Amino acid sequence: MQTELQALFARCRSGWSLPREFYSDESVYRFDLARIWRAGWLFAGHTCEIPRPGDYFTLEVDSDSIIVARANDGALHGLHNVCRHRGSQICAEQAGHVTRLVCPYHQWTYGLDGRLLACRGMPDDLDKKQFSLARVHAREMEGLIFISLAENPTPFEPALGLLSPLLKPQAFHRAKVAKAVDYIVRANWKLVWENNRECYHCNVNHPQYIKANFDHYNADDTTPRIRETINAVVARSEQKWSAANLAPTHKQPGMTLFPDAEKNVWFSANRTPLVSGWVSESIDGRRVAPLMGDYQDADVGTLRVRTLPNFWNHSSCDHAVSTRLLPSGPQSTAVRVYWLVDEKAVEGQDYDLAKLMPFWQLTSEQDWTICERQQRGVNSSAYVPGPYSTFKEYNVDGFIRWYLKELGAWDVMRDT
Amino acid sequence: MQTELQALFARCRSGWSLPREFYSDESVYRFDLARIWRAGWLFAGHTCEIPRPGDYFTLEVDSDSIIVARANDGALHGLHNVCRHRGSQICAEQAGHVTRLVCPYHQWTYGLDGRLLACRGMPDDLDKKQFSLARVHAREMEGLIFISLAENPTPFEPALGLLSPLLKPQAFHRAKVAKAVDYIVRANWKLVWENNRECYHCNVNHPQYIKANFDHYNADDTTPRIRETINAVVARSEQKWSAANLAPTHKQPGMTLFPDAEKNVWFSANRTPLVSGWVSESIDGRRVAPLMGDYQDADVGTLRVRTLPNFWNHSSCDHAVSTRLLPSGPQSTAVRVYWLVDEKAVEGQDYDLAKLMPFWQLTSEQDWTICERQQRGVNSSAYVPGPYSTFKEYNVDGFIRWYLKELGAWDVMRDT
Amino acid sequence: MQTELQALFARCRSGWSLPREFYSDESVYRFDLARIWRAGWLFAGHTCEIPRPGDYFTLEVDSDSIIVARANDGALHGLHNVCRHRGSQICAEQAGHVTRLVCPYHQWTYGLDGRLLACRGMPDDLDKKQFSLARVHAREMEGLIFISLAENPTPFEPALGLLSPLLKPQAFHRAKVAKAVDYIVRANWKLVWENNRECYHCNVNHPQYIKANFDHYNADDTTPRIRETINAVVARSEQKWSAANLAPTHKQPGMTLFPDAEKNVWFSANRTPLVSGWVSESIDGRRVAPLMGDYQDADVGTLRVRTLPNFWNHSSCDHAVSTRLLPSGPQSTAVRVYWLVDEKAVEGQDYDLAKLMPFWQLTSEQDWTICERQQRGVNSSAYVPGPYSTFKEYNVDGFIRWYLKELGAWDVMRDT
Repeated sequence: MQTELQALFARCRSGWSLPREFYSDESVYRFDLARIWRAGWLFAGHTCEIPRPGDYFTLEVDSDSIIVARANDGALHGLHNVCRHRGSQICAEQAGHVTRLVCPYHQWTYGLDGRLLACRGMPDDLDKKQFSLARVHAREMEGLIFISLAENPTPFEPALGLLSPLLKPQAFHRAKVAKAVDYIVRANWKLVWENNRECYHCNVNHPQYIKANFDHYNADDTTPRIRETINAVVARSEQKWSAANLAPTHKQPGMTLFPDAEKNVWFSANRTPLVSGWVSESIDGRRVAPLMGDYQDADVGTLRVRTLPNFWNHSSCDHAVSTRLLPSGPQSTAVRVYWLVDEKAVEGQDYDLAKLMPFWQLTSEQDWTICERQQRGVNSSAYVPGPYSTFKEYNVDGFIRWYLKELGAWDVMRDT
Repeated sequence: MQTELQALFARCRSGWSLPREFYSDESVYRFDLARIWRAGWLFAGHTCEIPRPGDYFTLEVDSDSIIVARANDGALHGLHNVCRHRGSQICAEQAGHVTRLVCPYHQWTYGLDGRLLACRGMPDDLDKKQFSLARVHAREMEGLIFISLAENPTPFEPALGLLSPLLKPQAFHRAKVAKAVDYIVRANWKLVWENNRECYHCNVNHPQYIKANFDHYNADDTTPRIRETINAVVARSEQKWSAANLAPTHKQPGMTLFPDAEKNVWFSANRTPLVSGWVSESIDGRRVAPLMGDYQDADVGTLRVRTLPNFWNHSSCDHAVSTRLLPSGPQSTAVRVYWLVDEKAVEGQDYDLAKLMPFWQLTSEQDWTICERQQRGVNSSAYVPGPYSTFKEYNVDGFIRWYLKELGAWDVMRDT
Repeated sequence: MQTELQALFARCRSGWSLPREFYSDESVYRFDLARIWRAGWLFAGHTCEIPRPGDYFTLEVDSDSIIVARANDGALHGLHNVCRHRGSQICAEQAGHVTRLVCPYHQWTYGLDGRLLACRGMPDDLDKKQFSLARVHAREMEGLIFISLAENPTPFEPALGLLSPLLKPQAFHRAKVAKAVDYIVRANWKLVWENNRECYHCNVNHPQYIKANFDHYNADDTTPRIRETINAVVARSEQKWSAANLAPTHKQPGMTLFPDAEKNVWFSANRTPLVSGWVSESIDGRRVAPLMGDYQDADVGTLRVRTLPNFWNHSSCDHAVSTRLLPSGPQSTAVRVYWLVDEKAVEGQDYDLAKLMPFWQLTSEQDWTICERQQRGVNSSAYVPGPYSTFKEYNVDGFIRWYLKELGAWDVMRDT
C-alpha cells in the first residue's frame, strides 16, 4: 500500500483538488482511518448527554464502537465496546444508564472505568487486571467531550487553552440536547469538510444562511458598501459586547482562516457578528429559545468552533448547533446534527422545534445533497483535479494541506 | 491483471461458453469497460428525445455519467457530466432543458458545447479554454444517437453507410418515445447479449414472439412445410414491397449472421417478413399505432438493427422498440426499453400503451428472467463451459469471438 | 493466500478465541469453503421432505446450488443445479416434483440421476454421457440426508454406525416437517457454532431452555443439591427406559464432550433426561404432538445429534427440531430451523404450531441475536482473542481445535 500511496501523493498539486482515489478508494480510506481517525481527537458528544454517574452513550468510528460513560466519581471514561472474553459488543443501545457494564453474552461485568469486576465461570486464578476493556482517551472541554483512539494522542492542552475561554460563556454543560438528527451522507468525509470550508457555494445553495451572515463575501466581491456594512456591524459589536467581556474575533469578510496547516493546528474558534437586526441563526433572525449560558443580552453574534477531523458548531445567544462526522466507508459519512438549548428550557413552552431547527436543518441538508452530487462526479473516469479559487477556497486548500501533512505527505505535493 | 487475464484467455475454447470469471469477476469487468465500453460506439438515445436546442439527456456507463445535449446551432454534443472545478455532477436529472450547463455547486457555467463560459470567484487570469467539459464523441444516424468515450474511436462511417439506407424509411427523427421502461438485470452484460443472439430458447420461453416470427426455425428443424411457408412469405414480400423500395434482406430460417467476428463488424441490420397475416410485432399481429415514417402500407415486415456492445431495435410499420444496455457492475446490466411511435400520434386516441407494449415487454422480461437464472448458475463452482449448438447458437459463438477479438485475445482461443 | 493464512495460524493460541480475521475476512471464508464446506458431509434435509420419486429440494452452499432428488427407483441423488449447456440454474424453486430435470433455458433434459437424456438442437454426435449434471455424494441416515461436495469424501460409515442406533427410535423417515423457518444470521458460521457449543450463556439468555435442561450446570457450579437431582433423574431414567431399550448416554452435568478434535470425529449423539416432570422441550414441558417413531411412552428424555459443520437436532418424544447452517458470506450464515412431528399428525387437531414452535423458536432467535452482537464486536479494531472457561467452554475450545485441524493448522497453534 505504501508504494501505491506514494504514487498517489506524487499526483497531488498545490492549490488543486485531490486525485479521485483519495475520495473513493478503500485503501486510502484505510490509511485515513489509521493516520487521522485513530490518531487525532474526535468530538464524541456533550457532557449534558450523560449528566449522572452511570449515564453513557456510544458512537461508531468505522467498525469501532466506543462507549463514553460517566463513572460514580463523575469522571468521564472512553472504552471500546468489546468484551474481553469473546468479543461481543456490550452496549447495543446508542445511550443508556447502568451501574455496571455487563456483557449480555456471558455476563462478564466491568466497572464504568472499564475494569473487569466479575466473570463467573472462569477459573479463580484468572488475573482480572489483564482483562479491562480497552481504553480510549476522553477529555472534557467546557461541556464538549473529545476522545482519542490513539495510544499516545497529540496533546489536548493547546486546544483547551485556546478554545475554553471562547466556549465558556455558552455554557454547554448547562445545556440540553433538544433534538439530534442522524444522516448517512454518501460521500467521502473529506468532501464533507471541503464543503464546510468555503462559502463560495452559499449564494445559490443556502438562501437561509446568507441572510444571517457575511461569510459569502470575499476579497473579490466585497463592494465598498458591503465593506462599510461589515465595519459598522463590527464596530457596534465591539462597543456593545465589551460590557459582557465578549469581542468579535473575526472582522474581515469571508471565512476565518482554518485550517492553518503550516501551524499544525486542528482547532479554531471565533466570535463573529450576525447581520444587523439578527440575534440568532434562525429563519427570521429572532430568538427561538431562552438565552443560554452567561449571556445577559441577545446581541452576542455567533460563536463558531471547529475541530478536525469531525466537529463544527455554530452557537447563537439562544441555541447551539453541533455537527459530528464519523467515517462509515470510503464513500459514506455518518453525520449527527444536534440542536442544544438551555437545560431549563421546556419544549412547547420556551422553544418550539419547528422554529428552532429549520435554519440549520435546511442548511445541513443542502450541503449533504451537494456532497453526494460531488461524490458521484468524482467517481467518474473523466474527473480530474480542478483549481481552487484563491479568493474563496483558501480554506479548502488549507484543509487539503493539513490532510496531506497528517498523512506524512506534505513534501511530495507538487507546486504549479 | 494482464497475467491473470492471459491465463483466463488460455482456458477459452472455440465453440464453447466462456469460463466463469468472464461472467462474474470484477477484474474482467474492468477490462471489458476499458476495451469495449470505453472504446466502441454506444447507442445513447434518439434525436427525438432532444428535438430543441437546450434539450439534453444523461446516461450512465458504469460510474461515468454522460450528457447528450443539442446546442443552439442544432448540433449534438456529448459531454462528461463532471464539473472541471471540483468534480461535482452538473446535471442531476435524466433529461431536461437548459440554456447553459450550470454546475449547482459554485455555478461554473458551460455552453451546450462544453466550453467554460463563466466562473465567478476565480482569478481573472484563469485560462477558461483549459477547463471545458471533457468531450465525448457524438454522432447521429437517421435519428439514432451514438457516442464514443474513446479518444480516437473506430470509424463511424462504415456503420452509417450500411445502416442508414435501411433505417431511413422508419424515420426515427420524426418519431416520439411513447414509453421507456428501465430494468436492472442481475446478469453480466455478455449473458444478456448471448441471450439476444439465439432463438434456441424461444420455443418455450417466448410464446408471444414465436407467433410473429420465423427466427426459431433453424437448419436442423425447418421442415419442408416450414421452408415452403417461409419461401412463400419472402416471395410475396419481395413482390409487394418493391413498389416502396423495400426488400427482404434475410430470407433464410434462423437468425441473420451477426456478429461476424472475422470481418470485425459491430453493426448489422436487416428487413425480414413477419408471418403471414401479421403486420406488427403486437400480441395479435395487428397495427397498434399509425404508420411510421415513409411507410404507405402496413405490410413492411420488421426492420431489425443491432450494434455492439449495447443496442438492438425491432421496428414494425407502426412502432419501433429500442433496447439499450449499459453496464452497472460485473453481474448487473442497466437496460432501457423504449417504445416509439410517429411523432404526431396521440396517446389514447391513436395508440394505447396497453396494446403497444405487451409484445416486447413480455419478451424482454422473459429474457431478463432467463439471464438472471443463468448468472446464478454460472456463479456456481460446478459451472464449466458448455458446447454451443452449431445449428442454433452460431451467433452466440460469433459474439464470443467478437468479444475475445476486441479484448485482443483472438489468437489464444483453443480449437477443439 | 497460503502465506497470509500461515501468519494467521501462528497467532492462534490454545484455549483462546480466534484472531479477528477468522471471523470477518473473505480470504479465510474462501479457505473455510474449500477445506470444510466443500470437503465434509453436510446435512441437507430429511427424507420425509422428498418421499416420492420425482420429489426434490434445493439448498445453497455459498454460491453453489444443489438439487437433492429421489429417482424412480427410490434412490437419492445429489446434483449440482447447473445446466451443462450454458450454465443456467435448472430448478428455481426450493422444492418441487418433476419427472425429468428440464433446463428452462433450452430444455436440455436430465434424469433424476443427472444423466443427460435429451438436448434437441445439438448435433446428433454429441456424446451425452459427457454431459451429465455434476454429481454430489448423497447418503441417508435414518431419515436424515447428508451430502458431500468433495470428490472423495471422508467415509460416511463411521457416522452411520454410531448414530443410526440412537436415531432409529425417533423414526425420521416416518415424520413430516410441520414448519420450517429461514434466517439470515449476520455472523460468521463459526460464531454460530461457538454459541451452540456452550451453555455458559444460557442462564441469562435462554429462560425457556434452562427450565427443561441441566446443560447450564458445570463442574464449577453444580451444587450437591443439583448433583443429587441429576443423579436421581438419571437413575430413574435408566430404570424406566430400559424396557424400551433406551438409555441415558450423558449422565454428567454440562454438555457432552463434542467435538473431540483429537479423535477427528465430526459427529455425535446422546440421549439425555429432561428435568423431572418434563417430557418435551416445550414451554411447559408437556407434550405438544402425538408420540413419534417407536416410542410407547412420553418419558424418553431428549435425543441430541450434531454433525459438523452444519447440523444439530434436539428430539423429544413428540417432536424433533433440526437446525441446518449454510454459509452465505464471511459474516453471514443462512439457517433453517425445522419442526418435525409424526407423519400422521394433523395440524389443528393433533398439534398446534403456536404450542409446538415457541421453545426452539425463542431459543434459536435468542442465539442469533447473540451471534450478531458478537460479530459486531469482533469486527472492532479493539477486539483481541479472549480466554475460554475451562469449566464451561471446553466444547468451544474443542470446536476451534477441530476447525484448525481441518484447515491443516493443528500444529501451529501456540500453547500458553
